[in-house]
Amino acid sequence: MKNKKAVVLLSGGIDSSTTLYLALEKGYACFCLIFDYGQKHKKEIQCAKKIAKRAKCKYEIIRFKLPWKGTSLLDKKLTIPKNRTTQQIKKEIPSTYVPARNTIFLSFALSFAEAINAEVIFNGANAIDYSGYPDCRPEYFSALEKVSSLGTKRGIEGKSIKFLTPLIKMTKPKIIKTGIKLKVPYQLTWSCYQGGKKPCQKCDSCLLRTKGFKELGITDPLLST
Amino acid sequence: MKNKKAVVLLSGGIDSSTTLYLALEKGYACFCLIFDYGQKHKKEIQCAKKIAKRAKCKYEIIRFKLPWKGTSLLDKKLTIPKNRTTQQIKKEIPSTYVPARNTIFLSFALSFAEAINAEVIFNGANAIDYSGYPDCRPEYFSALEKVSSLGTKRGIEGKSIKFLTPLIKMTKPKIIKTGIKLKVPYQLTWSCYQGGKKPCQKCDSCLLRTKGFKELGITDPLLST
Repeated sequence: MKNKKAVVLLSGGIDSSTTLYLALEKGYACFCLIFDYGQKHKKEIQCAKKIAKRAKCKYEIIRFKLPWKGTSLLDKKLTIPKNRTTQQIKKEIPSTYVPARNTIFLSFALSFAEAINAEVIFNGANAIDYSGYPDCRPEYFSALEKVSSLGTKRGIEGKSIKFLTPLIKMTKPKIIKTGIKLKVPYQLTWSCYQGGKKPCQKCDSCLLRTKGFKELGITDPLLST
Repeated sequence: MKNKKAVVLLSGGIDSSTTLYLALEKGYACFCLIFDYGQKHKKEIQCAKKIAKRAKCKYEIIRFKLPWKGTSLLDKKLTIPKNRTTQQIKKEIPSTYVPARNTIFLSFALSFAEAINAEVIFNGANAIDYSGYPDCRPEYFSALEKVSSLGTKRGIEGKSIKFLTPLIKMTKPKIIKTGIKLKVPYQLTWSCYQGGKKPCQKCDSCLLRTKGFKELGITDPLLST
């Protein structure tokens, strides 16, 4: 019997890579979706490709530009915030927020899933150790499921594509612990928002990652070499 | 006082062009959004640009490919249906349905609107004289508004971006009649799904357009030259 198909959004970071391995563990035939949208941290695209290959999964790369930018992740004139405290990270939506990014990414995933007859879309969104992005919260995904059921052919045929976010309520250490059990190749992942060769260890993404490894008492493989 | 801003999705056809002129009439400063997504009928992109220029509106073009295709509008191996009857058009979703296309388009529009502080997004969707696409119906747009309110920074700040679909319940003759009053340059529009120089007059899009002009007793300017 053929495995059920899933589309997995893969950014090359800790969360999406762990999500991919969780989806594989559940027995899905996974098709990864990678985005090249002009992000400063282009390195994550190469990492995502390596992770998909390591997991022996097919992948597609969608390329586009957002000419209006509207975020420090794309706009070279804007600085990516550094050294925010845990309190700040939890309370203020930072300039790295990309307007409607997850809605764009997930709508491509919906298109991909419908075209290849996949039943589910896996997304590594997390609403615990995250930067307060509104499009990472459970209520947002519920709204998106309604769009999937009303706005696609599969949906109106009663075979609506579901969004699965297994990490949404996990802390970062819990995610990493789960990933280590599943042998996620964290040495291949990339989280830093800056375009550098090494993680800056100052952006939100680095800080959340560091916190995760630190609380587990494990050295981040990216920092051990 | 500055006019309120609106993003208007512009495909270059009758419906989106009429919607643009309706939005302008309502006093909005309109920013058009045009998509180059590998469609066979590339001509519509040139037409959309001409219409935006004629209306003295700024526009952005978003370019991407859907590698999975999944539709006869993109896949050269698939044929675009011809000469479907009005009954067939109303009952069967044809192969020209593009998986989640409007969700992709409208998510880019949401990003654009948030980045430029636009309050509304105008879309020319129509659920009367249309090809039965699920992502053209009022209930779909209601679901999308929920995504807008929960998944964007503006949304959680209580300034949710709204989707306006003024044509959604109009017949094609009514749309054209409205457009003629507003001096929409229909001679610059393009509806045909085929990639030809002249309208094929056989695809759904041509048939719906022809029906509209015919019922009004007016010659389509594209056919009069």
